Order: sequence, then C-alpha cells, then structure tokens
Amino acid sequence: MSKEITSRLQDYSQWYNDLVLKGELADYSAVRGCMVIKPYGFALWENMRDVLDRKFKDTGHVNAYFPLLVPKSLFEAEEKNAEGFAKECAVVTHYRLKTDPEKHGKLMVDPEARLEEELIIRPTSEAIIWNTYKGWIQSYRDLPLLINQWANVMRWEMRTRLFLRTAEFLWQEGHTAHATSEEAVAETVQMLDVYADFVEKYMALPVIKGVKTESERFAGAVDTYCIEALMQDGKALQAGTSHFLGQNFAKAFDVKFSDKNNKLDYVWATSWGVSTRLIGALVMAHSDDDGLILPPKIAPLQVVIVPIYKGDEQRGMIKEVMAPVVKMLKELGISVKYDDSDNSRPGWKFAEYEKKGVPVRIAVGARDLENNVVEVARRDTKEKMSVSMDGIAFYVKTLLDEIQLHMFEKARIYRDEHITKVNTWDEFVNTLETKAGFVSAHWDGTAETEATIKEKTKATIRCIPLNNEQESGKCILTGKPSTQRVLFAQAY
Amino acid sequence: MSKEITSRLQDYSQWYNDLVLKGELADYSAVRGCMVIKPYGFALWENMRDVLDRKFKDTGHVNAYFPLLVPKSLFEAEEKNAEGFAKECAVVTHYRLKTDPEKHGKLMVDPEARLEEELIIRPTSEAIIWNTYKGWIQSYRDLPLLINQWANVMRWEMRTRLFLRTAEFLWQEGHTAHATSEEAVAETVQMLDVYADFVEKYMALPVIKGVKTESERFAGAVDTYCIEALMQDGKALQAGTSHFLGQNFAKAFDVKFSDKNNKLDYVWATSWGVSTRLIGALVMAHSDDDGLILPPKIAPLQVVIVPIYKGDEQRGMIKEVMAPVVKMLKELGISVKYDDSDNSRPGWKFAEYEKKGVPVRIAVGARDLENNVVEVARRDTKEKMSVSMDGIAFYVKTLLDEIQLHMFEKARIYRDEHITKVNTWDEFVNTLETKAGFVSAHWDGTAETEATIKEKTKATIRCIPLNNEQESGKCILTGKPSTQRVLFAQAY
Repeated sequence: MSKEITSRLQDYSQWYNDLVLKGELADYSAVRGCMVIKPYGFALWENMRDVLDRKFKDTGHVNAYFPLLVPKSLFEAEEKNAEGFAKECAVVTHYRLKTDPEKHGKLMVDPEARLEEELIIRPTSEAIIWNTYKGWIQSYRDLPLLINQWANVMRWEMRTRLFLRTAEFLWQEGHTAHATSEEAVAETVQMLDVYADFVEKYMALPVIKGVKTESERFAGAVDTYCIEALMQDGKALQAGTSHFLGQNFAKAFDVKFSDKNNKLDYVWATSWGVSTRLIGALVMAHSDDDGLILPPKIAPLQVVIVPIYKGDEQRGMIKEVMAPVVKMLKELGISVKYDDSDNSRPGWKFAEYEKKGVPVRIAVGARDLENNVVEVARRDTKEKMSVSMDGIAFYVKTLLDEIQLHMFEKARIYRDEHITKVNTWDEFVNTLETKAGFVSAHWDGTAETEATIKEKTKATIRCIPLNNEQESGKCILTGKPSTQRVLFAQAY
Repeated sequence: MSKEITSRLQDYSQWYNDLVLKGELADYSAVRGCMVIKPYGFALWENMRDVLDRKFKDTGHVNAYFPLLVPKSLFEAEEKNAEGFAKECAVVTHYRLKTDPEKHGKLMVDPEARLEEELIIRPTSEAIIWNTYKGWIQSYRDLPLLINQWANVMRWEMRTRLFLRTAEFLWQEGHTAHATSEEAVAETVQMLDVYADFVEKYMALPVIKGVKTESERFAGAVDTYCIEALMQDGKALQAGTSHFLGQNFAKAFDVKFSDKNNKLDYVWATSWGVSTRLIGALVMAHSDDDGLILPPKIAPLQVVIVPIYKGDEQRGMIKEVMAPVVKMLKELGISVKYDDSDNSRPGWKFAEYEKKGVPVRIAVGARDLENNVVEVARRDTKEKMSVSMDGIAFYVKTLLDEIQLHMFEKARIYRDEHITKVNTWDEFVNTLETKAGFVSAHWDGTAETEATIKEKTKATIRCIPLNNEQESGKCILTGKPSTQRVLFAQAY
C-alpha cells in the first residue's frame, strides 16, 4: 500500500507522524510550527471539547472571551509569568501594510504604522484577564468568579511536533477568583479531578495525579497540579495542569475585594488548562502499526458498515436489509457510516477505516444475509466475530462499551507495569535505559539535584503524587535523606 | 437607579453602548478596539453558534482549523484580496522579548529575533486556506470540499464599536471548493439562505437578500451575496455575506483538479461568514429604553421566576410549590432560573432581568399561592398576566413561541414601513433625512454615481435584491436610464 505506516519499532517518532498525517488528523502548514487541524482531527477535538465544556458548566463555570493580544506593559506586570514566557512570544509591532515602491505588486510593512506599544499574542491569558477582573471585582459578593475560555494561544517553540508541541494551539483556560486561599486550592484540585476523570473515562488513558516541583511549576504559580500519562515508548506526557496562583496576579494587577467585615484583601486565583496536545497523547497511547485506535466515547465515527457485493442488485439488497440496522444504531446515539461507495474495494476500505481508528467495523455480504449474520470486527483487538442480525444494534452498543473499558485496562496494565521502584543510582539509570516508564525514587528535594539528574539522564520529576506515601530513604543521586519517593520519567 | 440606560431618542449611540455594557454582554479591554465578551454575551453567542453549526453540518459541511498567522507572501498572492485588507493588518515581526538593559524589570522586543518574513494575523483566511487546499485537491473525487472554521480574526479598524466593529472579532468562515461554476454559485446561494433562515427564525430579524454592487464587493470575490437588516434608527446593517469567488483564489494559489476526462482546470470557490457583529444587530433591532429584548430561541435564559416573600417560612413555602414548575419547564427544554437570593429586592431583580432581556418573568407571592395563580410578564410587550398554576409550564412554552413570532412581526412591519420608493433626487434626500430606512431607487449602474451619492448623502447601495423586479426608469442622480431599482440606505 502506498499509504503505509512506519512501524513503532522501526521509528517511533515517524510512526507518530504517519498516524497523524495518514489518519487525517492534521497537516503541516506554510507557517513555521503551526499546523492545520483537518476535519477528522477537528471532529475528535469537538467531541473532547463538548465533554469538557459540559463538565466545566456542571461545576458552575461559564465561558467568556478575552482579547488575543496583550499589551507589553500588562504582559510584564507579573514578573515570573512574564519571564517564563518572554522567550517564546510572537510580537505585533505594526498595524498596516503598504505597497512596496521597489517591488511591483508586493506589500511591505508600513513603517509609519508602528504601534506605540507592542502587543503580544497571548501565550496564556492571566495578564489580560486579571487586568479585566480588576474592573469586575469589588466585594465578596462578586466572588467566586468562575470563568473559562476556549481559545487559540501561541508559544514560539523552537522544535515543534504535530499536536504535541506547536507554535499555535487550541486550548481552554479556566481563570477563577476566590475570597480565600482554601477555596482557591479546592478549586484547583476539583479541576484536576475533572481533567483526570475526562482523560480516564473518555480518552481511556490512566493518569497519575500529582504536584510539580518548583522547577517544573507554571511561571507565576504557587503550586502546579498535574496529570501525567504514559506513552507506548515509556515516555511520560503531561496531560493537563491546574494552578493555584495564590495572590500573585491579584497583587500584580491590584485586584482587591472587601470581605463581609469590609476588610480589603487581595483575591486568590487559579488557572487550569488542557489543549489539543491531548490528541497527541491519545494517538501515542493507543494506536498500533495499522493506524489509529480511538476510544468509542470520543471517536468521530464509532461504527462503519461496509457491504460486500457484486453488482447493483446485491448492493441494493444489502442496503435494504441494513437500513433498519443503521437507523437503530442512530437511535441508540451511535454514529455510523454506511459506506457502499463504488470508488474503492472493500479491502481498501477496511484498511482506511483501520487507519482512522474507527472502533467497530461491520462487513456484510450476500452469503451473510442468507445466514442472518454479519461480521463484526473490533479495531482495538482486531478480533472478528460472526454475529446474528437479531439484536445486532444492542450487541454493537455493548461492544463499544466493552472496547472503551478494554482500552483503558490495557493502558492501565502497561502503565502499572512501567512504574519501577529503585533505590540506587545504577538501578535508576538502568531502568530508564532498558525499560523506561515512571521511576519511583527518593530525591533530596533540591532544584540542583533535580537539574543534575535531568542533565545526566534527560529524566525530570513528573510529579510528587497526591496522597503520596511517606517513607524515609536516601536520594538516589546525593544520598541525602528524603521523606518520600517522587516520580521521574523522560517526557514529551 | 444608578445603572440607568440612556434613552434612544436622547442619544441612540449611547443607548446602544449602555445596553451592551449594562446588559453585561461585553466590556472594553486594555487593547485598542478589542472587547471582552462577558459570560452573558458569550452564552448568547454560544446559542447562536450552536444553531448555525448544526445548519452547516446538516448541509454537509465539516469544521477544521487553520493557522492564525498568514505569511506575507501568501497574503499578497491574491492581489485584490491583499489590497482590500492591507490597510488593516496586524503584523507580527518578532518572536521573542528580552530584558530591557536600560529599564529594570521591563521587557523589550529582542531585535535579534526578527522574523525573516512578516506574519499577518488573519483578517480572513482565504490565503492560508487556499494554500492548504492546493495539497488536498488533485481530482474531481476530492471535490466538493465543504469546510467551515470557527475562529478569531483581526482587522485594524480606526473607529471601533462594541460588537459592530471591533479590531478582533469571532466569526465562522466557510471555504468551499467545487468542480464547476454552477455548483459554486449554488453553494453561495444555499449558504445565504442558511444565514437568512437563521437570522429570521432565531434572531427574529427580517432580512433582505441581495447582491452587492462592485464597489461593495468582498475583495477578491466575483459576486458578494448579502443579507441586510434594518435597525431601529433606520440604518441598515449587513448581517452576513456569502461570496462566489470564481477561480480567483485557485489561480492565485495554483489549485487545479483533473475532471472525469482527465482535463485539468482551476477549482471554483466560495466563502461565507457571519460574526459576533450579529449580536450588535440583535441588540439594536429589538431592545428598548429599559434594556435588551432577546428572542426566546437564542436567549441565554428564557424564564426567570422571582418569588415575593416575607420571612423564611413564606420563602420556603413558595419554593416548594414552584419546584415542580421549575422541573417541568426544564423537562420542556426551557432554561429557567429561580431567583430567591436575599441580596436584592424583587423590584431590583425585575429591573435587572428586564435589562438583560429575559423573555419571560414569573413573579409569585403568598397571596398568589392562595389563588393558585402566578404573574407572568413578557419582556417584549411588557404585558403582565395573572395565569393559573394549572398547566403553567405549557402556557409558558406557548408564550415563548408567541414572543418569538411577535418580535419578528414587529421588526418586519417596521422594516416594511421603512422601504420607500422614490423617483427623484429631492425625494431621495428628503426620505433619508426625515424617515431613513431603505430607499428603493433607480441608479445608472456606474460606480461613479454610487460614489457621488455616498459622498452627498452617506447612503450606499445595500444590495440589488435577489429576484429583483425589472422596471425601466431613470437614475435619481444622473437621469440616465436604469432597468431596476436598488436599495440604498445609510448603514453600520
């Protein structure tokens, strides 16, 4: 086949790119580091977005929209945040083009249309949002403020990869304001739980919830909570973050509220986000050498029916018999496509839908009709079953649930098998080299040690797991005392 | 009241701004010409977007996402399009900030991080999309390509107004590719019909469908179709456009396809869009001096119930009686809020929900309960009715439909009364000055005459109505022969 996919073993990185491109999720664009999300990939994102949006609204949040551009003076107001993002900012400096007098038919930036103050394309929106909140918050009655935004953001990364690291990406960013520190921390943890629940139940991807070390913290946060997932090559991927921002942004933008006793205090803040990066995680965690494997709950297409016929009479007959099945599946809320297009042969169609990760394929020929059966193939295990036409729609509905659970279980077992406890430096290095995955080890708690370990092994501390077991031990690098293990891994 | 709204008669423009700000639809931002869409305004936009998105999908379109930034060389490829937008482009020239050595704690653009090629923030996406389509279209089998994108765009307008004209706005832009001119024209007209149907049925706003003259055409289009609505001050507002682009973009980006006979030809294109500007139209067309009046079908909140009680016992009793009503309304798919908050008095709540344009308000006190009635007030006519509790939910459902129809009828009658046929220059000028609205008049068909009329009266040709009656006459300005009337108006 011309559209072959590189195997994982041969070249994991190329395998991933092949899946994204040939699975029609995304395409490269003319703009450095920016991708086009193709209709099939976007339908997947829409499904993910709709579930998350419902969860945000169910937990009391509302959506709004804030400007794309951030004036430099606002951008630099919270110093740590500004420092963290300054090196990857796309900057708007002019607001007009004009005809180039030296090149016929070409345009040039009009030097007379220089902005008085440069505008940054938001890499994240804390600055513009907290500057706005200043006008919206006066009293405890205005709190909590629970707002989310679905938006595009831009971070000028030097090395980019489709979905995983692109200069522009789509995401949602929640920005909440609270009267107390406790309430803000509770919100931070609640949203981490929302993310974990979504990624596990819908993306079929088990995650570890934890807190980042200071070095890995979001610029401007007091604490960054995260969910970490494991990919098939044993590398970790941060799937979502929820930040407790303390009063940092309230102080930078002077946002105070009067409490019930008329006492003025700075507002407490959180922010939390997940992005189209999740699609990269989804692809890497589940797929195989034949293509994507998508979890039924968010797959753009759940079932495809491919009739196998000779001539128009058989084609018509099969279509007639299958029409009520299609109808019934739709009534059960299942997305289904009946593909009897004449453009390509069944074998080609099978490969195509496998590549695109459609969870269930039903094939049906004239002989099957005589026997009142169809052939049902599941994408995840590649099992094929001959199934009676009686009650086929309910069979498929149950099968989709089964596939969803099985995909999660498979990923969970793989993940659990790839959490290795080590106690010495040699074990640590050896585990990373031979097995990868998460390595649970003692660390002396210093940023220096963390940096040295990263330099020597490329492994970073992914998180200190929530409700971490307290256990005394010695740092694998320095031998200094430690009270708990943390999770290391090489990561995307 | 402190949050008073300026009356329409006193200052129409200030009335509009008051509605947007005090109705909590939007707020000004720190970025010149860019606004913040507040949660209430965004909920309205979500409702509008969801209806439109369903209509696009029902007509075979899929969503995708293309990059925000357009390299200058692509931007200028289609000359007319580039010329049309060059003067309002936000231009990214650098990709990094650095610490300003002369100002402690401040950042500056890093002069060493200048882009080789400037990037334009999309004012519209034809260029980046047709450059992408080049890689997606080879054969007639790849056509039609029916793609839509929901996105933010930026046009650096000098004079901005909330929703109506903002530097950044949200919109959708459909970009389709076809094998024949006929098919592309049919798509253009189909999408105009989708827009007209949406604006009339959901926004309760009657529109006139037509074609733009050459001067008012989209830059790069062969023909621009539009829907035009009338505001309460007699000015017209373009509510949506659908463009037949011919082969202009296919030629600029060299997008060819081979037909069934293996003959190569350029692809035919359309593009079509509506934006958050529609919210401005909605506000201006229906509201009154007490606040917004929102059509039930897209109102973020359709019904509010305000109990009138003294003490906790009455409060609890009314809540208990009304709970099944709230439940029943929700079961009927109606959004409802039961507001028994102690923060404010009923009268203040009434004014607040009036200002926000909630279509139906139900007030209920202890006396009402004894009589088994509630007071129902409709926002559009301000009528109040005492209604039996028996079957109240169905009554409200019917009332919401009635309000939707009544709002449309009221706007239609106003619009129809403001289409004036004139035959002389004096009548034309006089009508614009005393009555405004659409003026139906003969025009000699030249851009010069059109420009002169605009200069003298600020009126432009809004459109040549579709299926326009052919009638010979004389141009109101030049007296030259004309074969049909066109619609003039002053416009937003």
